[in-house]
Amino acid sequence: MPKGVGVSAGIGVGPVRRMAEPIPEPDAAGQLRGDAGSEKTRVAEAVKAVSADLKARADKARGLGRDEAAEVLEAQVLMASDPGLVDGSAAKLAAGTSAERAVFETFGTFRDMLAAAGGYMAGRVTDLDDIRDRVIAVLTGQPVPGIPESDEPFVLVAEDLAPADTAGIDADTVEAIVTVQGGPTSHTAILARTMGIPAVVAMEEADALAEGTPVLVDGTTGEVVAEPSDEDVAKARTLEAKRAEAAKAATGPAATADGERISVLANIGGPADVENAVKNGAEGVGLYRTEFLFLDRADKPSYAEQVKAYKAVADAFPGQKVVVRTLDAGADKPLPFVSTEEEPNPALGVRGLRLAFKHPELLDEQLRALAEVQSESTADLWAMAPMVADMRDTEYFVDKAREAGLKTNGIMIEVPSAALTAGHLAKVADFFSIGTNDLTQYAYASDRQVGALARYQSPWQPGVLRLIGAAADGAGAEDKVCGVCGEAAADPILACVLVGLGVKSLSMSAPAIPMVKAALALHTVEQCREAADAVLGAVSAEEAKDIARAHLPRLEELGL
Amino acid sequence: MPKGVGVSAGIGVGPVRRMAEPIPEPDAAGQLRGDAGSEKTRVAEAVKAVSADLKARADKARGLGRDEAAEVLEAQVLMASDPGLVDGSAAKLAAGTSAERAVFETFGTFRDMLAAAGGYMAGRVTDLDDIRDRVIAVLTGQPVPGIPESDEPFVLVAEDLAPADTAGIDADTVEAIVTVQGGPTSHTAILARTMGIPAVVAMEEADALAEGTPVLVDGTTGEVVAEPSDEDVAKARTLEAKRAEAAKAATGPAATADGERISVLANIGGPADVENAVKNGAEGVGLYRTEFLFLDRADKPSYAEQVKAYKAVADAFPGQKVVVRTLDAGADKPLPFVSTEEEPNPALGVRGLRLAFKHPELLDEQLRALAEVQSESTADLWAMAPMVADMRDTEYFVDKAREAGLKTNGIMIEVPSAALTAGHLAKVADFFSIGTNDLTQYAYASDRQVGALARYQSPWQPGVLRLIGAAADGAGAEDKVCGVCGEAAADPILACVLVGLGVKSLSMSAPAIPMVKAALALHTVEQCREAADAVLGAVSAEEAKDIARAHLPRLEELGL
Repeated sequence: MPKGVGVSAGIGVGPVRRMAEPIPEPDAAGQLRGDAGSEKTRVAEAVKAVSADLKARADKARGLGRDEAAEVLEAQVLMASDPGLVDGSAAKLAAGTSAERAVFETFGTFRDMLAAAGGYMAGRVTDLDDIRDRVIAVLTGQPVPGIPESDEPFVLVAEDLAPADTAGIDADTVEAIVTVQGGPTSHTAILARTMGIPAVVAMEEADALAEGTPVLVDGTTGEVVAEPSDEDVAKARTLEAKRAEAAKAATGPAATADGERISVLANIGGPADVENAVKNGAEGVGLYRTEFLFLDRADKPSYAEQVKAYKAVADAFPGQKVVVRTLDAGADKPLPFVSTEEEPNPALGVRGLRLAFKHPELLDEQLRALAEVQSESTADLWAMAPMVADMRDTEYFVDKAREAGLKTNGIMIEVPSAALTAGHLAKVADFFSIGTNDLTQYAYASDRQVGALARYQSPWQPGVLRLIGAAADGAGAEDKVCGVCGEAAADPILACVLVGLGVKSLSMSAPAIPMVKAALALHTVEQCREAADAVLGAVSAEEAKDIARAHLPRLEELGL
Repeated sequence: MPKGVGVSAGIGVGPVRRMAEPIPEPDAAGQLRGDAGSEKTRVAEAVKAVSADLKARADKARGLGRDEAAEVLEAQVLMASDPGLVDGSAAKLAAGTSAERAVFETFGTFRDMLAAAGGYMAGRVTDLDDIRDRVIAVLTGQPVPGIPESDEPFVLVAEDLAPADTAGIDADTVEAIVTVQGGPTSHTAILARTMGIPAVVAMEEADALAEGTPVLVDGTTGEVVAEPSDEDVAKARTLEAKRAEAAKAATGPAATADGERISVLANIGGPADVENAVKNGAEGVGLYRTEFLFLDRADKPSYAEQVKAYKAVADAFPGQKVVVRTLDAGADKPLPFVSTEEEPNPALGVRGLRLAFKHPELLDEQLRALAEVQSESTADLWAMAPMVADMRDTEYFVDKAREAGLKTNGIMIEVPSAALTAGHLAKVADFFSIGTNDLTQYAYASDRQVGALARYQSPWQPGVLRLIGAAADGAGAEDKVCGVCGEAAADPILACVLVGLGVKSLSMSAPAIPMVKAALALHTVEQCREAADAVLGAVSAEEAKDIARAHLPRLEELGL
């Protein structure tokens, strides 16, 4: 059976609808057809039609409470309403250029201006290109590029999804997503999990799935069945029901079958995510990504604003752990109020804690804000630094955090060197939290954003498992807690292996919590350890997963 | 005593000359001074003066046999001779713009065209900017940016050097280079070693060295003494003489004091580097970087051209080892005849062997060419793949190379995962060669090109030493040779530690060979092992180096 990597759980059934191909650049030598006057009218009407369509979709998104998507669409409507677009095209039509080429070139001028403006404006170039391609599609009768629009449920099949495609996906009609490229930490995967849409990525065979073919997608196992029989669908639904039941039953504190407590926590981006975390049974927050408070704004958040945001989260978890990661920004997530230089490889550049070496004032203020929240809330507040590579980084952060009055101060283990020297770092840091996404990216030198490198990006890769083991061993020797807050923790099978490697806390996106609790509850620490020992000998990610399954006998009860 | 990181051996003495500051962008609202006609004459004369100066420097470079530098300068002369530069500026002068702003904007138009042309042309943008800044400097009376030009010897002090600065450095007048930023694998370090200029990098205190201050620079120890006494200079020269003597005496096959043979080999970029390798006592080639044959040309080298280049190197080392690394290109080293997509982080992208997955024809042809050379030469030809991350990569390359008829087929260990899973990979690969520069970059997630991250980029970093140890252990368990071909091998102290870690071959830039041989000859394998064991416990790169020194008692005899 064709199989990809299941990255968002659930069953989806429906006909294949493929992403329409990108609109090619219109021929530069394209000649005007008909007369310039009527072609101008045609351009004006195409722009109007696209604008109206975007407006309708914006309204629909607002209605569904998807405000972020609506904002992007509304901004596009504004762009499409600029009279300069039609006037600019008219000038080119008058010079004998084809309508589609005239539109392409006119948008090009706007595009250059946006790009030159830099910052937020430059980020809008993709939105402008989308409008341009839609107008050209209307003019030339090509299918509109991007996510198919449909009122009937369908399975979306694509080469890969870009962040810009997000706005076009409607969880009500998209039954499942299947992509040829992408990995567990790709945009597609993260988006699908966030929207609760079953998804399978890195499936080469998906290229061969023809438009309209009915398919069955299992986002848990990664199986995709073309032309499934009723029996296939029924079987998959039974399995899914079993999983749902297991998840539903998995309430209460997380522990292994032999009663060892494991903290099962939520990854959140801000106070808005708290409700979902609590609902799914999070025993606290294992990763509070504070950068969302800092990004996409002209001025830095004030001290008071920070205290308010951190306190809102802390107060939601009285007596429980709330691990706050300090600002993780840099050249790839630039802050308008902090100058960052353009870098050839932002992921290997001045990001995370490294930014603080140049701009300590931001970190200092954040630590003071956290210390105030620590004293005013009953939550057990832990502070954590991103992108720590060595002892000097560790001492720098822990010293600063202690000076600010914070009690428990740890580090992310996401740079391979930190895992390799964990024995030293655990003497200074109060705890570790392993970020498996970046750790995998660096250990395998493969960018998370590059679909063609998806196969390297599995947290099941033997090199990643060894680094996790090294970090857990280092922490264990100093009686410090080692947790995992990367996507790896959300995989119920891998979660058992992580516990076997010595990990004491698992933090994940909220919807994954119940199944992880369920998987832990069925296996003893000893079984987890045996699985971990065996897995360390694996030659590939696939073999590692198979070995783990073989050592965790009760996964079947969960439909896994 | 202020100390940086010594990256290119030797003693340099002279007055400090600092890199002139970059020319700031002229005020966009700058008004024309005087009348447009006389200002046009002034612009034309400035352009002519700059052009003449570039021409003189090009001729000088030709005379010194520095053909590459000469070509860059000659191309700049051609650019500066374009009448469009003066005419374009004249139009802006007529519109009331200041001369320097007019020049800036006119160059801007040319710049955009070059950048838009992409590929080779886009690479010339920096050269064009350099001309623009020189013209503006002449017009405004600012010091000419870049390397100071002087007929008297001096010590060049800079924040950091860019590759574009290469052409301006004259080994006859630059006594030594000291930079505030940069690491052992920075452009500055590589450039200085290639040109044989003593150099110290990563020295924060260099910012305080005033223009004209006499300084003494020891590129071996990293010491920089301001206002040195005659005694200081004499002492340094004695030390240097000791080193020179030790290097001179280190002829014959490389071995430890107790007679264990270690292969000491040269890193080369092509046949032109062979002579220097042989002269310095290389026992073969440990890294032949074939990409230089492929870069900066419109079409790929033919099969016959490849055979010729590889054979020229192989024939220079009859009966000796010649390790050829297959094409290491990608988004950061793009090939015009291979389409590569723009990537957010080229160093983590589709580069090295990964390019072959999409374009196997290039690798296949290269392997066939190597097989032909193997059968026609008496050299012991080894083939090696760059950017191997896991078992699938290893099998892919070794299978292909065997099919082509090559006998000895190994892999670079430069991705952390390859070192971490070396035990598996050694079952398939015939040998390992560790690329410490990239390995350090990935293990510490710090771009080699970013000066601000220099402190992470030392091969003495404990995390790097552990990965090297893991790779050597993996190879040793399968009786395979593990070598090092990164800059780490060129450090005579570290070379002893590497041997202690189990490394059997060391490959380096040719000038480093004698001192490495000398250091090995003075220490037993047991002493190297003790040093290696102790070093693995170090918390920082500095501590690692100190520990190594303490375990290698006879370094003093070498003036180290």
